[in-house]
Amino acid sequence: MHRFKITELGENVFWLRETERDHLVRVLRLAPGDDIIGFDNTGAEYYATIIKIEDKSVTCRILEESHPEVEAETNVYLIAGLSKGEKMEWVIQKGTELGMSGLIPLRAKRSVMQLEGRKAIERAERWQKIAGEAAKQSHRVQEPQVFAVSDWAEVQRALPQETQWLIPYEEEKTRRMRTVLASLDSSLPIALIIGPEGGFDYSEISWAQEHLGAKSVSLGSRILRAETAAIAALTITLAYYGDLG
Amino acid sequence: MHRFKITELGENVFWLRETERDHLVRVLRLAPGDDIIGFDNTGAEYYATIIKIEDKSVTCRILEESHPEVEAETNVYLIAGLSKGEKMEWVIQKGTELGMSGLIPLRAKRSVMQLEGRKAIERAERWQKIAGEAAKQSHRVQEPQVFAVSDWAEVQRALPQETQWLIPYEEEKTRRMRTVLASLDSSLPIALIIGPEGGFDYSEISWAQEHLGAKSVSLGSRILRAETAAIAALTITLAYYGDLG
Repeated sequence: MHRFKITELGENVFWLRETERDHLVRVLRLAPGDDIIGFDNTGAEYYATIIKIEDKSVTCRILEESHPEVEAETNVYLIAGLSKGEKMEWVIQKGTELGMSGLIPLRAKRSVMQLEGRKAIERAERWQKIAGEAAKQSHRVQEPQVFAVSDWAEVQRALPQETQWLIPYEEEKTRRMRTVLASLDSSLPIALIIGPEGGFDYSEISWAQEHLGAKSVSLGSRILRAETAAIAALTITLAYYGDLG
Repeated sequence: MHRFKITELGENVFWLRETERDHLVRVLRLAPGDDIIGFDNTGAEYYATIIKIEDKSVTCRILEESHPEVEAETNVYLIAGLSKGEKMEWVIQKGTELGMSGLIPLRAKRSVMQLEGRKAIERAERWQKIAGEAAKQSHRVQEPQVFAVSDWAEVQRALPQETQWLIPYEEEKTRRMRTVLASLDSSLPIALIIGPEGGFDYSEISWAQEHLGAKSVSLGSRILRAETAAIAALTITLAYYGDLG
């Protein structure tokens, strides 16, 4: 059953417009009488039938509304140091499947990839699309938010005051992630800050500890690539609180 | 510090030959006097200095032997239904970083990718190389084994009798993976059987339950791609027993 993000929700009906409409009409070639599922990023899912296809919109009649328990209860954000190539796409896709609430691309000191101005905006939009596709694939009803490419200060402002920050850091030899997870309040947001390929500068760790109250943690004894660390940290956290496994 | 897999171990010395020798000499261009680290897949690591470079071998004098606690204590194997494209490579690379003991490529009913005869052997060799590179990158002292491409019966024979088999299965709605992990003996091997992109046929699940005593488990409420499921299941398992996080 194909899934679509609802553009506008009505009484017993909803409309799909723009890219959602075009995807339905031109790519999937669905027609009136076909059934689909719409979701609206509030946790609801609507089983519906297509009743009208027009130039700029598709109208669907809602047959049934449900609130599937598919979203993670714990709100976990990934703060991902900008990495080269397809690594960001990969992390966004898999992070969405696994259940992250959002991802903030971070301009880390050692980030080789530079993204500024127009390019940064376009890239974040593309990454948001990837999150959208992955959300549909995994049957989520909430699309995680991909934030604008940010520096450290912007990262701090992007999330609520009560966010609990963790930095998996390979120089951290003693404090295990599990120990810190045991001490957190899972009803409050959790943010996992992952370095770029070159890792974090010690000054960045220091800044995060001082300004965010971030705790550096060890993911274990093996060295992980940046993208592996992101997905592992997210999986470990969600599994710890029962949102995975 | 560059890491190499030891070809032959001597009294206070070891030799690197073939691809290891060539990589050292032609790619890295190391020379006598340079220090390296050798490991021999038994858990030991040798800090050494290069003393002689010859046509077919490099001789290194061992300065210090250590037994770093880098390997997972729990032996977790991935049984991965053959998937298309680069997915197998990703799973092998990331599975190695995370700490798997080995991976068996499985000819599942719905595997789109077919691998037989010569091609299957060559592909498994290439995958073994990927595991080797990933082991070095993550500073492991044991390279996980990539088995020959196998069918279900061969998978059964490949692992010890006392192996505990789990199958993450999206149709499994009630039995959570955490519940099963709590019941296992972590001193015995654990095998996680992951389907190809199309998932498993019910007959395969049935066969595994009957012949392997495999338990189907749920990874949670979101649908995961095959490669995400493999890495998530591995991470959840290793983290559960304290080998990650």
